[in-house]
Amino acid sequence: MKHTISALVKNRVGVVADVTDVFKRNGVNFKSISCAETEEFDVSRLVITVENHDGQLENVLDQVRQLDSIAELDDLSRKEFVDREMALIKVGFTRETMTQVMQIFEVFRANVIGMGQETISVEITGDEDKVDGLIKMLRPHGIRSLCRTGVVALKRGDE
Amino acid sequence: MKHTISALVKNRVGVVADVTDVFKRNGVNFKSISCAETEEFDVSRLVITVENHDGQLENVLDQVRQLDSIAELDDLSRKEFVDREMALIKVGFTRETMTQVMQIFEVFRANVIGMGQETISVEITGDEDKVDGLIKMLRPHGIRSLCRTGVVALKRGDE
Repeated sequence: MKHTISALVKNRVGVVADVTDVFKRNGVNFKSISCAETEEFDVSRLVITVENHDGQLENVLDQVRQLDSIAELDDLSRKEFVDREMALIKVGFTRETMTQVMQIFEVFRANVIGMGQETISVEITGDEDKVDGLIKMLRPHGIRSLCRTGVVALKRGDE
Repeated sequence: MKHTISALVKNRVGVVADVTDVFKRNGVNFKSISCAETEEFDVSRLVITVENHDGQLENVLDQVRQLDSIAELDDLSRKEFVDREMALIKVGFTRETMTQVMQIFEVFRANVIGMGQETISVEITGDEDKVDGLIKMLRPHGIRSLCRTGVVALKRGDE
């Protein structure tokens, strides 16, 4: 099962190092991490997604909760939430494949953000499955560069 | 000056912990971090943005380059690149403010992804200034929750 861990943390030197060190010490690999500022200057939001943790995750999260830089920590996998990620993808094209590549972008509502002699770059947002789906369709055309943001998530409704 | 550091790293336990630990030991705070898988299973892309580092950054990057989990590291601030981030924002509304809030979304091309009795959630992608701009416009309406992905970046052109 995939877990999406969302935490509010103090915006100061070493916080991400401290949190990721707990994962390292427990031998748990995460699939993605993202941390950026929130509307409050001194608070950042950290989102980590984890797959296949062999039951270690609860233990890891208990240790993370004990760090004094952590204000709030939720395992969103248990709650209703909207999750999204973004990816920037640079893919190859030729005169022959151009139309096909553009059609794939249209199906996935990917926005073109740049173009070279032999590559097009697009931006896509959506849940992980959508991003994976686009990548799978583009792979035969030659992905030159790919940058995913990692998942971010908001609870559904007013909460 | 703002720096956008992009690295290809091995996808294994502890890599993000090792990199962020170098920043911590040197007392350098970063503005955002994101790390997720690339098109190759065993390689992840790590992007870190840094502001106001008091000249420490070169030193930090030299130490990061020496980690054996780092395959490639670029300071994209010196190159032509497209940078983007995504944010999910939950903002309050009333019957009176609804139209105004929706107009702000339209101006910034933010997509509504959810709605409750008294809040609307939107997704926005763009460069940091665009995301900051939307946040500034929405702040008077009451931002209930905000989650930014951190910046990701691709080099312009075919490279």
